[in-house]
Amino acid sequence: MGSRSGAARQEKSGDARPARRRLSVDRRREELMAAALELFSRHDAEDVSIDDVAAAAGASRALVYHYFGGKQELYVAALKSAAAQLEARLRPQGNGRPMDELALGLERYFDFVEEHAAGFAALLKGGPADRSGEIGEIVDSVRHRLLRLIMRQMRVEEPGPALRITLRSWIASVETAGLDWLEHRDIERPTLERMLVDHMVALLGVAANHDPQVEGLLEELARDQLF
Amino acid sequence: MGSRSGAARQEKSGDARPARRRLSVDRRREELMAAALELFSRHDAEDVSIDDVAAAAGASRALVYHYFGGKQELYVAALKSAAAQLEARLRPQGNGRPMDELALGLERYFDFVEEHAAGFAALLKGGPADRSGEIGEIVDSVRHRLLRLIMRQMRVEEPGPALRITLRSWIASVETAGLDWLEHRDIERPTLERMLVDHMVALLGVAANHDPQVEGLLEELARDQLF
Repeated sequence: MGSRSGAARQEKSGDARPARRRLSVDRRREELMAAALELFSRHDAEDVSIDDVAAAAGASRALVYHYFGGKQELYVAALKSAAAQLEARLRPQGNGRPMDELALGLERYFDFVEEHAAGFAALLKGGPADRSGEIGEIVDSVRHRLLRLIMRQMRVEEPGPALRITLRSWIASVETAGLDWLEHRDIERPTLERMLVDHMVALLGVAANHDPQVEGLLEELARDQLF
Repeated sequence: MGSRSGAARQEKSGDARPARRRLSVDRRREELMAAALELFSRHDAEDVSIDDVAAAAGASRALVYHYFGGKQELYVAALKSAAAQLEARLRPQGNGRPMDELALGLERYFDFVEEHAAGFAALLKGGPADRSGEIGEIVDSVRHRLLRLIMRQMRVEEPGPALRITLRSWIASVETAGLDWLEHRDIERPTLERMLVDHMVALLGVAANHDPQVEGLLEELARDQLF
């Protein structure tokens, strides 16, 4: 079954008891996943082969197929793993003021963008050739969870249309700013992040003119001495 | 070669001279294209078959294959046609003031979104299963041309990073607002369009704090008595 270097060697130290074996199977899968994610982060999905993933993880091509079935499944799994990592990073760390948490979240978001540069760009610019409905759903679900996260930080339970559209628009504009930054890198990241926080404040100001709910929210945020 | 109703009958009135024949071939292709675009606008691409397009145009399945090769090619052609229609609509009609043109453009954009509702949503939410790099490129090129259009309206030739990111972000947020509106329709379109124009003004205000170029642009727009 091909080469037995790197990750494969580690497994030999485990014994045959089910619990240990299971752990080792999970770990092996995670190692393949990490190698795949690393490759998908640095290259267009079209340019990553099963062989590349196998080589990077020191495993056989057959083993990658065994765990993931095929490249499309591997890509979907890597994407889900990346989405989970992003969400974990964006979870508020403390009980900070909403706009401070937003600024921190943006910093972590851009760290993520930078670490997964090629994959992020390929995915959101229009996607690789094998992009399927499933992949679109993962992207949408990340956007949706970011929306819920921001709402929770702002202590909003049921956003009216104006607030919902404002927050979704802002998330889209952050995504686009991330793509633009990867493409041009002609502005300092901290400057860009500050600008995006200012965008949120400005957009909420606009929404407040259209919806008393947002006006109330802005007053509440202001009471937190945020602006 | 199947049924000869509708579009097919019209062709019979032409004669065999090359110019007339050519016209008739082009018209036939356009008719198939219009039928395809109509179907792709109202349904997910996955749910549209070559047979549906043939039936809607009163043509044979073989004829659709003859002109377009296959469903993916037909979808790409329909998308290009839709993109061209959108751009034609957004071209400034007169020498209006930039922010008035922006408001008019937004109205026409939302007309387009409404007319192509299902196709717009399916394309931009994550895309149909057969979405390929080519389709992503069409979407990107529309975004890029919208950016150039807005820059021209604002008489900006070389945007600095802050302005470029602001305009791209705004375009992304309009797209997202379009998707949100199709999904919820719980805000009046004119209200939403006004809010998006206000977004632009607010975002330019933020960018002006980061870049003197935008400050100058804002002053110029204000001299046009726009705000």
